[in-house]
Amino acid sequence: MNNKKLSSLPLGNININDSYFTRYIDLVSDVIIPHQWSILNDLETNMEPSHCIANLKIAAGEEQGSFSGMVFQDTDAAKWLEAVAYSLQTKPDPILEKKADELINLIAKAQQPDGYLNTYFTLTAPGERFQNLEECHELYTAGHFIEAAVAYDQATGKRKFLDVMCRFADLICATFGMEKGQIHGYPGHQEIELALIRLYHATEEKRYLDTAKYFIEQRGQTPNYFDEESKHKKEYIFPDFKDFDREYSQSHVPVRQQDKAVGHAVRALYMYIAVADLAYEYDDSQLMDVCETLWENVVNRQMYITGSVGSSAFGERFTVDYDLPNDTNYSETCATVALAQWGLRLAQIKRDAKYMDIVERALYNTLVAGVSLSGKEFFYVNPLEVQPRTCHPSSSKRHVKPVRQKWFACACCPPNVARTLASMGNFIYMVDDDSIFINLFLTNKTAVNVNDGKVELEMCSDFPNSGHITVCVETTSSVAFSLAVRIPDYAENFSVKLDHEPVSPIVQKGYAIFDRMWNQKTVMEIDFKMAAKIIHCNPRVRANIQKGAIVKGPVVYCLEQTDNFENLAAIVLEEDVELTESYDQSLMGGVTVIQAKAKQISSPEWGGELYSGKRPQYKSVDIKAVPYGLWGNREAGEMIVWIHSPI
Amino acid sequence: MNNKKLSSLPLGNININDSYFTRYIDLVSDVIIPHQWSILNDLETNMEPSHCIANLKIAAGEEQGSFSGMVFQDTDAAKWLEAVAYSLQTKPDPILEKKADELINLIAKAQQPDGYLNTYFTLTAPGERFQNLEECHELYTAGHFIEAAVAYDQATGKRKFLDVMCRFADLICATFGMEKGQIHGYPGHQEIELALIRLYHATEEKRYLDTAKYFIEQRGQTPNYFDEESKHKKEYIFPDFKDFDREYSQSHVPVRQQDKAVGHAVRALYMYIAVADLAYEYDDSQLMDVCETLWENVVNRQMYITGSVGSSAFGERFTVDYDLPNDTNYSETCATVALAQWGLRLAQIKRDAKYMDIVERALYNTLVAGVSLSGKEFFYVNPLEVQPRTCHPSSSKRHVKPVRQKWFACACCPPNVARTLASMGNFIYMVDDDSIFINLFLTNKTAVNVNDGKVELEMCSDFPNSGHITVCVETTSSVAFSLAVRIPDYAENFSVKLDHEPVSPIVQKGYAIFDRMWNQKTVMEIDFKMAAKIIHCNPRVRANIQKGAIVKGPVVYCLEQTDNFENLAAIVLEEDVELTESYDQSLMGGVTVIQAKAKQISSPEWGGELYSGKRPQYKSVDIKAVPYGLWGNREAGEMIVWIHSPI
Repeated sequence: MNNKKLSSLPLGNININDSYFTRYIDLVSDVIIPHQWSILNDLETNMEPSHCIANLKIAAGEEQGSFSGMVFQDTDAAKWLEAVAYSLQTKPDPILEKKADELINLIAKAQQPDGYLNTYFTLTAPGERFQNLEECHELYTAGHFIEAAVAYDQATGKRKFLDVMCRFADLICATFGMEKGQIHGYPGHQEIELALIRLYHATEEKRYLDTAKYFIEQRGQTPNYFDEESKHKKEYIFPDFKDFDREYSQSHVPVRQQDKAVGHAVRALYMYIAVADLAYEYDDSQLMDVCETLWENVVNRQMYITGSVGSSAFGERFTVDYDLPNDTNYSETCATVALAQWGLRLAQIKRDAKYMDIVERALYNTLVAGVSLSGKEFFYVNPLEVQPRTCHPSSSKRHVKPVRQKWFACACCPPNVARTLASMGNFIYMVDDDSIFINLFLTNKTAVNVNDGKVELEMCSDFPNSGHITVCVETTSSVAFSLAVRIPDYAENFSVKLDHEPVSPIVQKGYAIFDRMWNQKTVMEIDFKMAAKIIHCNPRVRANIQKGAIVKGPVVYCLEQTDNFENLAAIVLEEDVELTESYDQSLMGGVTVIQAKAKQISSPEWGGELYSGKRPQYKSVDIKAVPYGLWGNREAGEMIVWIHSPI
Repeated sequence: MNNKKLSSLPLGNININDSYFTRYIDLVSDVIIPHQWSILNDLETNMEPSHCIANLKIAAGEEQGSFSGMVFQDTDAAKWLEAVAYSLQTKPDPILEKKADELINLIAKAQQPDGYLNTYFTLTAPGERFQNLEECHELYTAGHFIEAAVAYDQATGKRKFLDVMCRFADLICATFGMEKGQIHGYPGHQEIELALIRLYHATEEKRYLDTAKYFIEQRGQTPNYFDEESKHKKEYIFPDFKDFDREYSQSHVPVRQQDKAVGHAVRALYMYIAVADLAYEYDDSQLMDVCETLWENVVNRQMYITGSVGSSAFGERFTVDYDLPNDTNYSETCATVALAQWGLRLAQIKRDAKYMDIVERALYNTLVAGVSLSGKEFFYVNPLEVQPRTCHPSSSKRHVKPVRQKWFACACCPPNVARTLASMGNFIYMVDDDSIFINLFLTNKTAVNVNDGKVELEMCSDFPNSGHITVCVETTSSVAFSLAVRIPDYAENFSVKLDHEPVSPIVQKGYAIFDRMWNQKTVMEIDFKMAAKIIHCNPRVRANIQKGAIVKGPVVYCLEQTDNFENLAAIVLEEDVELTESYDQSLMGGVTVIQAKAKQISSPEWGGELYSGKRPQYKSVDIKAVPYGLWGNREAGEMIVWIHSPI
């Protein structure tokens, strides 16, 4: 790699007040964090108890009882703490911090004398640690605790949680590896790898990085570790695992030989994040090639237009190239969180805007679709087409929920959405000593130190309603640095003015670069067109043949029954459809809606028979589209992204 | 009911030599029956052993060992015997009959002293008979044995098997019912009901009919029997059953209250056959209304154009009205067998050709799709659209097989196809004392006794290649009887000539009726047009919006990759497509192929990206369609029934 990896800015330095995201970011501190705390403590009466905090209390000796929940139930607490850490940076809250401190005390008490931490094994099978790596998620759980501990240390300067997790990480590093007496295995669900790398960055302890590398290098070697492990297994915790192939856990071949995204999507993507990190840290160009090959496979062959991945419900898996059904897909919210993190890592390493095009798509569409505007309901599965009555609870489509759910037995997604929204600031800028990269156009203020000068940035826009963005750059003295502005892939007529003067910047890998001396105050005006338009799909994707999607900039639009009428699938766009944009301040906190004339096949005129030689009759209809990320926030009904279009 | 129920003719009286079906019917005796015998005896080395005959030998004390296979493994032997019985009628074969006799001797030896017969319980859990009706298929298995025994008695006049099954039926009648000491339950998988009715017709023992009625009346009464039964259940044989609702087994409400086809499709349809029979036998108009309501629901809202049903793979179930996806459907071959039987019963009772329109569709398409032209490979699942590479074995589409399979762990379908093909003659005619109804236009010769006269019929056609059918009616003397000819729903310009003179018959419920005195020899010429055409689908079916299917008469056509090219889904029909028919004698035993000009979206010209604002480019292509029933008999590849059509 030629360049140093860029960094995100500290969240506490970024003040976001954005027309699109603030409605969600505020939710995290105001609703999601307190609500999820209530759920984790089993204080919500209208849902199944989580048992998450109860398990920790029992393991800590504070309560009597037995373990309940999934083997990875602890991760709900970990991800909650991580979200809290991010939230405290942007919105200090002593009462919340006290709750978090108390939870950390509980976690410390639940830790075993040798550093081990996992309430499932401590309470259920203390003698069986690390013996069922394929199924038991111990290292996955450890990873989430570590991520939370690193974040909490950064947010509060309090080291206790980090110390707790370093002790567990030390145990893991001692337990796993190629030395004699060590376990030569690796996690059934990746996550520890990226977490150990974060821990390395927080502590500079090289062994954490090395163990992360060990896990990646060892994965998929012959003989397959899970094959060996299963020989000694009496019983499967998840009976389905018996039928899973090794692609499920990306252990079918060594990671360096992998060239297609396969298997469980979240497992895969968490691993790819670590692969990117390791490629950078070890300056390992082969590993970086693997990472880029996998990226191209995912985004050009296996990704929905909404930035979601994993088209098979069975196994929550990637399937094969161009297999992207719209109404039976899985598209787990967690996978989109991971895709965004992976893209951010690659953008930071490669300084290439193409990664942020995908990250932005993921954040503006599937991430926000993951949570309701109330902050209390969540999507786990993110379909691109829903007809509620066909999501029969006893059918193959039972995984598709036409409305967001209050919680899940496996509740990975809600806290993942929370920690990501709470850390949105990480995605806006990337910096090193002499550069500031603007990735996303959220309205915000921040201050950055570059080349020993302090730079204050104030970015204002009504993006994604328009592509007019003003960035006010203020320095206390003259400071030389490079300001790079991402030119989105959808931007037309991209132009920049500095203090009202048009400028022609150098463009490198999708960034317009302004490398100059900045004096006191400079007003940068970024302008590009991003009119709503119809996007078509690669004809190798069977589900989208002769269909179009309405897109405006990064925002994918959908039709909802509540704005339209029944049987959205029978709508057909006109060949040269005119899309009319208007901003509706009163709709779901303010949103640009898109309207058009179209036609619809008329059901009543067809009659009662299923099949006939007669031609369907059409009627003219007016259609209205809203951002996909906001679907399902009003009256339940049909939703569709890909609309028939005879082009 | 006004009329007596019509009967099929004895199979032995019908000699079929048909351009479409003979390739399959001959297979039954020549290949399928011997091949399946080899499988049932574990003599095939390239597949998992069936254990079916072995289980019977062990239960009969002839071999040592333990039970293997599904709880209903015995039914493979039963359905094989039923197919043999039909085959022996049309093609006597003393060696085959000897094998069948020996199997029947074995079954008799495996029967328990009190009449009980089921190798699973006899060998595995003799004390647990009839205690797990929900899962264990005992009554289902009994039903198939009974059907076989009735058929074998009719075919050979040998009563032994019938006597064996009467003893078991007597035990069942004594065991189940509303009397004190009887079990108030009913089968988890329906089949015994229709079998007991067949046994009643064979024996005239009313208790068999009454017990069938009891099973139907008791089903779904409150409290639900399976709910009660499950309270005492230690363990589920099929763990999935724990999650199944009561709609799965059509026990959610009493049968008389059911108005939509729900749950497991084969369970439902086997029950509906019995409901039709009982409605007739007890002259029960309420039950007949239920039956007709369910029929309308199935054929007008839940049936594929190919005559298959059950759109959900999970639970092999019906889902909801108009939910008919083409590439994820289940459409079990057995369900089509049952649909054809149900339709035949209703046609026999109601004398309405509309039922036979559906039966014909089922037989000409999905039934024959169920077996390869070699007779040794079978489809269990019958998709209407297949892209082999997306039928990933670890994905939600893992149930869809792009090529026919040699056998199945649950091997219900192959012998079901065999027994149905072997009894095709049952579907051609329906008769009573003074009427002959012609339902299907298979080339055949038969002799019928009506009104004390003997009538010889010789039907000649190249149907379904054309709608020109000649029926030569010969009587030894003048005989008065009604000859009714079905006017298919697809027939255009239907006309009839008698001895070359055009006649205008009375038409009743879809039959052209010729009620007259028939003298010696009369030549009837039936003519109708059934040019290939594009059929559209009710717009309530999302999967078929802006698509068309090529259909010629009862035959649904499909495109196969081997005749065309890759990415069949990207083909778009022209608005006024001209379909050209030609008969290809050399293709798969002779078949009418249909060709047309169309366009296809060009993948290479699209490029590598998934999503783009550019318009797809089209190229002109020539397409060639073959009958759906014959798909998958050549090089494996894509297949599609519903083709994009911007109409």
